[in-house]
Amino acid sequence: MSNKLLVVGTMAYDSIETPYGKAENILGGAATYIGLAASNFRINIGIVSVIGEDFNLEYIELITKRKIDLTGVEEIKGGKTFFWKGRYHENLNIRDTIETKLNVLENFVPKVPLNWKTPKILLLGNLHPEVQLSALNQMNERPELIILDSMNFWIDNFRETLDKVINRVDVLCINDEEALELTKQKTLIGAANEIQKYGPKYVIIKKGEHGAMLFNKENIFFAPAFPVKSIKDPTGAGDCFVGSFAGYLMKINKFSFEKMKVGLIYASALASFSVEEFGTQALQSLSKNKIHNRINYLKDLTSFDSKLINFDIL
Amino acid sequence: MSNKLLVVGTMAYDSIETPYGKAENILGGAATYIGLAASNFRINIGIVSVIGEDFNLEYIELITKRKIDLTGVEEIKGGKTFFWKGRYHENLNIRDTIETKLNVLENFVPKVPLNWKTPKILLLGNLHPEVQLSALNQMNERPELIILDSMNFWIDNFRETLDKVINRVDVLCINDEEALELTKQKTLIGAANEIQKYGPKYVIIKKGEHGAMLFNKENIFFAPAFPVKSIKDPTGAGDCFVGSFAGYLMKINKFSFEKMKVGLIYASALASFSVEEFGTQALQSLSKNKIHNRINYLKDLTSFDSKLINFDIL
Repeated sequence: MSNKLLVVGTMAYDSIETPYGKAENILGGAATYIGLAASNFRINIGIVSVIGEDFNLEYIELITKRKIDLTGVEEIKGGKTFFWKGRYHENLNIRDTIETKLNVLENFVPKVPLNWKTPKILLLGNLHPEVQLSALNQMNERPELIILDSMNFWIDNFRETLDKVINRVDVLCINDEEALELTKQKTLIGAANEIQKYGPKYVIIKKGEHGAMLFNKENIFFAPAFPVKSIKDPTGAGDCFVGSFAGYLMKINKFSFEKMKVGLIYASALASFSVEEFGTQALQSLSKNKIHNRINYLKDLTSFDSKLINFDIL
Repeated sequence: MSNKLLVVGTMAYDSIETPYGKAENILGGAATYIGLAASNFRINIGIVSVIGEDFNLEYIELITKRKIDLTGVEEIKGGKTFFWKGRYHENLNIRDTIETKLNVLENFVPKVPLNWKTPKILLLGNLHPEVQLSALNQMNERPELIILDSMNFWIDNFRETLDKVINRVDVLCINDEEALELTKQKTLIGAANEIQKYGPKYVIIKKGEHGAMLFNKENIFFAPAFPVKSIKDPTGAGDCFVGSFAGYLMKINKFSFEKMKVGLIYASALASFSVEEFGTQALQSLSKNKIHNRINYLKDLTSFDSKLINFDIL
């Protein structure tokens, strides 16, 4: 097994409108956000995805410059890249999909390159569970850690296939509403317990501006969100979150609950940068200092003098 | 100045309906919840409020048994106690007021007893800002800490008077939506900064199930909510929160930001008990052990090994 993080996910053109601006045909896609976020840890990252012949060469350069291996990205001659157009409401938690053109994604069969069949971490980014399953089946040996990200669209329309994938992963990363929908539970604890019965030993529930939680059988951890002064574009925040989490774990190369906690803190910090600019812009030029400062901020945000906790106060 | 916590607030009969049950004419009111919560710290608490002749003697006993001084509670002969009837939606964050009978509250002029005119902490619970102002004006010397709790109804209808009160307090405790409404800001940080310009040096923003935040000029602290398995009745959770905060501070008798952080943790724990039962039921019989366990749980919920945070990981 090699110290590599393999990411399966979309690469896309996005057109995005938020109350704070708009951008047309910019670089997007789950694998893109994941890769850029994870690359901050200077690890070996490979992407399995598909693009059309129209995919901008500058975008390829931008990604490969971050030492992300794109051998597994298939370019379809004459094909057009997956396109998504969305509009966010004044309440940025609500968005309408204006247009989706699957294009080359429609018949996508992932092809994992030979030298990427034994990654230590496999991250199945948010896309069709059939694609996730196919990539998983191409592994030469089971990765030490398999992380799955998904969303309501796949829960609603491909539940059976999704269940097969969920059953085979170690970590399911999902947002709060989707966790409740997936499990028909009323509380996040209930949902997390239920999901663990489906297979994953670890469950991450993302709550957007309200932080994220990590569960296993014995423990619960809560990571606060960094309180950003203004959100310009929430697109990709979830991808960035799970990508940073995976990137951190690959860097320290240990996958215990204690280490995952810190992974959540890094994920929270990196996702907070992502939403402050349109598309992947913020992720393209983050300094170590900037990230480290935000990590320390998050650490201080929930720290208090635990010696003040005293049975005799009551 | 004496080591006393004076609470100004309502005492009430509540009829409550939630998706998990209903209760008629039970003990309620901000001052009641505040007093019961704060009494867990075994401090001197006095309440200034008003009740009708119909107020159940058992309720009086229940409160005074907790060493809460009710000298400042006026009983109006022939009057009826303030009554509130509300119904919660499936989403417990939304409630409809079905009926409000102000009764004795309508012409209430608070009368602070002589021996309660020099409390170290004055907590102005959620009620008419004119009443809050009148109580504040009856202090013989300025309390070392004045805490104000308010809500949208007073913001919408009595803004001018409310502003006068806000200007004179040290801590404003308010929920997230109300903070944004009060300040016309888009983020909680923006709101907290704005509120500090109005007078309060400290701002507490309650986010319900998403925890609470404490701000002053230099610092921000986030206290997670305790993840309860089921919520039966959210009534009084905010009162319980601010009451516990005040109770903790009175007990340790120091009012720094560092101490307030821990106050928020105790507040979070105690409020979580409150919502697990109808009305004040849970608050009537909490053991030290139960509270202490939840405090430790909250401590662990956000704790991680900060030695794992390392500049060279990036």
